[in-house]
Formats: sequence, structure tokens, C-alpha cells
Amino acid sequence: MSKKIVLLPGDGIGPEIVAEAVKVLEVVDKKHKLGLKFEEELIGGSAIDVHGVPLASSTLEKCQAADAVLMGSVGGPKWDTLDSSIRPEKGLLKIRYEMGLFGNLRPAILYPQLADASSLKPELVAGLDILIVRELTGGIYFGEPRGIRLLDNGERQGYNTYVYAEHEIERIGRMAFEMAMKRNKKVCSVDKANVLEATVLWREVVQSLSREYPEVELSHMYVDNAAMQLVRQPKQFDVIVTGNMFGDILSDTAAMLTGSIGMLPSASLNKDKRGLYEPVHGSAPDIAGQGIANPLATILSAAMMLRYSLDQGEAADAIEAAVGKVLDDGYRSADIFSEGCTKVSTKEMGDAVVAAI
Amino acid sequence: MSKKIVLLPGDGIGPEIVAEAVKVLEVVDKKHKLGLKFEEELIGGSAIDVHGVPLASSTLEKCQAADAVLMGSVGGPKWDTLDSSIRPEKGLLKIRYEMGLFGNLRPAILYPQLADASSLKPELVAGLDILIVRELTGGIYFGEPRGIRLLDNGERQGYNTYVYAEHEIERIGRMAFEMAMKRNKKVCSVDKANVLEATVLWREVVQSLSREYPEVELSHMYVDNAAMQLVRQPKQFDVIVTGNMFGDILSDTAAMLTGSIGMLPSASLNKDKRGLYEPVHGSAPDIAGQGIANPLATILSAAMMLRYSLDQGEAADAIEAAVGKVLDDGYRSADIFSEGCTKVSTKEMGDAVVAAI
Ligand SMILES: CC(C)[C@H](C(=O)O)[C@@H](O)C(=O)O
Ligand SMILES: CC(C)[C@H](C(=O)O)[C@@H](O)C(=O)O
Repeated sequence: MSKKIVLLPGDGIGPEIVAEAVKVLEVVDKKHKLGLKFEEELIGGSAIDVHGVPLASSTLEKCQAADAVLMGSVGGPKWDTLDSSIRPEKGLLKIRYEMGLFGNLRPAILYPQLADASSLKPELVAGLDILIVRELTGGIYFGEPRGIRLLDNGERQGYNTYVYAEHEIERIGRMAFEMAMKRNKKVCSVDKANVLEATVLWREVVQSLSREYPEVELSHMYVDNAAMQLVRQPKQFDVIVTGNMFGDILSDTAAMLTGSIGMLPSASLNKDKRGLYEPVHGSAPDIAGQGIANPLATILSAAMMLRYSLDQGEAADAIEAAVGKVLDDGYRSADIFSEGCTKVSTKEMGDAVVAAI
Repeated sequence: MSKKIVLLPGDGIGPEIVAEAVKVLEVVDKKHKLGLKFEEELIGGSAIDVHGVPLASSTLEKCQAADAVLMGSVGGPKWDTLDSSIRPEKGLLKIRYEMGLFGNLRPAILYPQLADASSLKPELVAGLDILIVRELTGGIYFGEPRGIRLLDNGERQGYNTYVYAEHEIERIGRMAFEMAMKRNKKVCSVDKANVLEATVLWREVVQSLSREYPEVELSHMYVDNAAMQLVRQPKQFDVIVTGNMFGDILSDTAAMLTGSIGMLPSASLNKDKRGLYEPVHGSAPDIAGQGIANPLATILSAAMMLRYSLDQGEAADAIEAAVGKVLDDGYRSADIFSEGCTKVSTKEMGDAVVAAI
């Protein structure tokens, strides 16, 4: 039985890093007999250049029919001046929405080999391992009405709608509790219930859902405090669950705590556990095409793909172990390089992971 | 000519810290002949206990008639179970809105004497001096419609509205540019223009306003990136201007970068430069009544009050210099205490500042 994987390399460094992840996947495919089949499609700026839109409907259909999607990154200065309706990011937002990828898992892990890279003091981040569970298909990202309108007094007004229905909160809450059960059994739900009614409901639904998970310790935190606590004492967290907008902000904060955002993968899952996998970092147009980007976040995203959408935990473990070994052996791409290590190119890093498998 | 100051000590440690700020103000009043007149009123939980609401209309009227308002902090577990419409925070939101305090200034300054308190590595934060200019009377905090409604399918849905009109963006943008002119002439405007239409307009208005300030270097940053950059390289910022919700999150992140949130003041100004002044920290119910809270953030808020609402820059400078001296002399409240310093109570800290003036 073969497994269809759609590759969406995207823009900037996307094609370079996805190529390395594919190389790694091909090796584990052979070893673990996964029957992977790859199909490559366009997304973002490169799709705009060819199709005039950041996500063609034929691409979307292929993604919906696939077992999983592995993405690179989208966006770049070339498309920054386009009308906002056809900007590269819209392709990403559309695929998330249309595939129903409501559950975004963003681990923030500090690799012991890279402990120095953090801007935080070592004792505060040593061993850091947080999982941010971000709602990805609702909230203010997709709420209607939205737009820019002309008021009677002649001035313009921009508006968006922050909206969550009970079932949306419940399903993402459930994903967070399930993840916590496999981890340290702590969930912190982040909201702004002292100001926003949408998050008053959020808090209530998460609270009542927690009755189904008596083993999990649930806490609630206002988003401003959570942003503070992430900087102050990040290791107090295990799983953080929150809405789309707060999750965007907090997951980037958490990622940056590790100091090595070039290492962090993410998964976006739908109710059938099919999903889209992508590195947390962006398309880095400034270094695109130079062969120096770090492919590890994408390689680790491929590992998440095997684990969550293909149920191949062993193969995923093998990739993650290989990445650990490569770091142990002192291989570093430019973004994580430090004195005494071996600086390698994108391709050499991919080769090193392949060799370690 | 006398100047009316309304004191709103509020809840938790509020009364203790405001008392010390008043002591300090009385001394500079005498020295600089400011003609200050104090009137004390209730806000938050303590107002709920007496008036049944977190901000009585008589209190609001007095604040509106005053030259400035000095607040402590609101909230505490005693009022956490009340219906959200009469929670202590609503008093704060109401006074901001009714007094038209659209411009919230939140400096994040690392005092060299407290450099060790930061969770960031010393070299990243040494000399840190950022000013966050947060819009405070608009955005999703006050947008209508808002609430929790029953959908046709029987489930509930929570909703809020994120909304900004051109004049709201322009006036806060102007405040940021004016502040930058007195500082390092750099403004970073934070939005999420790749997703939210409300912030597409935000970016546009700030951009066109910048033509009036050719000396100021303007940049735009998405909020997720800004949250990251604050952790990665905070000293790249001078003035950050942003909306109410993003400002809530980013100003707390920035405050925490200093590691000494007990030191940070804030000002909330209206178009006539009248304002409300309060520490950035909360009501700390866990230590209330023990006489150990740090009054310096409130004392520094009083200095901001003299500078911005009373046009008494010299008196403000005197207070700030005294706080510097007290730190130099090694006086520390419990929250900023470190080995080798002299631990002092709330009252002793106030006395030390008074002595230093
Ligand atoms: C590119 C952008 C639309 C996107 C988001 O805001 O979700 C990105 O920041 C992310 O977090 O994946
Ligand atoms: C108490 C709360 C309503 C308030 C806010 O969100 O504005 C606080 O967090 C602040 O930043 O002053």
C-alpha cells in the first residue's frame, strides 16, 4: 500500500530544504518499507508566478487526496507589492482552511547541543521542551465580517472578527489534552477572558472538557501574562493551548527561546490526522539559493509527518535520532554554527542525516 | 495655581505602593512648589465592595476634572468569581475609555544596577531602553459587536470585533513619532497586515503619517516576528507603536525582558495630555498587606505624571535621579533583591527615595 506525499517547496529557501528532507525520507522509506510516493506542486510566490494565484485548485485537490503534505516556506520581497488578496501567505491560509487543519503542533525544544544559542540564561532553558497547540482554522484569521469600509464621516475603518464556536474550541482542547497525556500531563490554556468574550467561552469550554482528563493538570493564563512567563520561566510549561492569533505570537516567542528556530518543525492536522508539515521558520529570501540554509527543521517536520499522519513512529524516531547524532558529531549549518564545530552546507547537512540513519 | 491629582490606590498592594508615591510627591511638591492637591477615590475590587461597581460615576467625574490620576492596581481572587461585567478590570477599562486615554506609554528600561535580574544574557539587554506606545481605547478591546450568542445549531459562539478607524491610528502614530523625535528617532510599527485587514489600514496610515517625520526611521513588523525579535535582539528597537491587543502582549514581553517588572511605570494620555499613571505590574494579592511590595514603579509613574500631565520635567527628573541613587546605594525590595544588597520594606524604600531627593 503506497502513501502519497505532496511536496510544496514554495519560495525562498523552501526548495533547498525540502530537497534534503526528501532525501532523508527516501532512505527511511527503503529501510522501513513505507511505500512513499512523492508529487511536487507549487505554493506561494512560485505558484503566483505560474498560476496567478498562490494556491491553484488543482494543487489543493491533490493535497486533499494525499496522505500528507510536506511544505517548505512561502513569501519573499518579489511578491510583497502584490495586492493582499493574492499574496503568497494567502496560499498557506487557504490550504490550512480548506484541508481543515485546525490543530497546529509547534514544539519548542532546546537541543542540548545548541544550548548556547538561546538568548536566555542557560539555567532557564536547559532541557526546555514545550508543545504549543495552536488553533489554526478559526479565530480572527478567518472570522467574518472583515475588510476596510468607508464610514459616513468619510474616513476609512478596518475591521476583523474574532470568533470561536464551542465545537472549534472543544476539538483543539481535546488535541491538547491528548498530547499532554503522552507528555507531562499539564495543559495551560491561554486566553484574554478578562477582556474578550470570545475567550470567555474558550475558557469555559476548555474547563469543562478537562473533566474528561482528570489526570491532566489544567491551568488558565491571560495572554499577556503567558508572554511574560515564557520569558521569565519557560520550563513551567508542558502543553500550551490557545487560539490562532495568540498561538501565532506565543509559538514564535517559544521558538525563539531556543535560539535555534532553524531546528523547529511543525504539524498542522485535521480530524482524520492528515496534515501539512512545515518548518517554523520562514522563507529567508536573503539567503535563498546560496545552499547554506538549515534543512533540519524540515527534516524534523518530515519525522512528525511519519509519526502523526503515517503512523510510522519508528521511522520518525530514526530520523530524530539521526538529527541528534549529526548535532553530537558537531555538524552545524551557518545559523547554528559556533566555534569548534564543522560548518556544513544545506546539502552536506542532509547527507550527514542520511549517513546517520 | 493648584493641581488636582486623584489617587486611585485600588486593590492588593495598590494602597501600600501609592502611599509611598504620595510621600515622594509631597516632598517634590514642597521643593518645586507644584501646588499638588490630592483626592483619594476607589477603583476595582475595593470600589465593588463599597459601590457595587468597579468605577463609580462620581469617581469618574472627579478623574475627568483632575489634572492627573495616579493609580495603584486592581483585581484579586476575592472578586474573581463575580460576573465578568462587574469585575475589577472593567473599572480600569472604563476609566481608560471614558477619559479618552488612547496613548499608553510603557517604557522598558533595564536599570544597570539590576542587570542580573533579566532572564536574558547580559550582553543582549545591557542598556536596554525601549518605549512601547500602545493604543488604549480602541481595537478589539472596545470593538462592537461583541458577546456570546446561541447559533441555530444549538451551540454557543463567542465573538469580538477588531476595529480601527483612520483617526485612531493617526493620533497614536503621531504620539509615537513625537516620542521618537525626543529619543533615537526610530519607530517600529507592529501589525499583522498579512492576515488582518484592520492592520492593513494601520500600516497604510502609519506609513503616510511618516512623511511628516522625515527624520524618523520607520519600519513595519508582523506581530509574531516582533515577539521573536524582542527575545532575540531587543536593543534593535527604540519606539514600538501598536494596537491595544498586540500592545498588551508585547509590552508585557518587553517589561519582562528587564527582569524587574516592579520597576516599570506607565502613562496613559488623552489628547489634552491629561492622563492616568500606573505601574505596569499587577495587584500581587499574594503579598498584599505585608509591606514588602516594591513601590518604585509607582514612584516612577508619579514622575511620568509630573513630566507629561503637569509639565514639570525638572521635578520628574529629580524623582528619577533619586530612584537611581537609591539603587546605587544598594537598597532593594524583595522582588529585586540580590546578595550583598540591603533588603528594605515598601515604606523603607519610599523613605530612601524621599531622603535622596
Ligand atoms: C505567514 C503567516 C500567514 C503565518 C501565520 O500567521 O499563521 C505564519 O506567521 C505562521 O505562523 O505560520
Ligand atoms: C487588566 C487588563 C484589562 C489590562 C489590559 O489588558 O489592558 C492589563 O493587562 C494591562 O495591560 O494594563
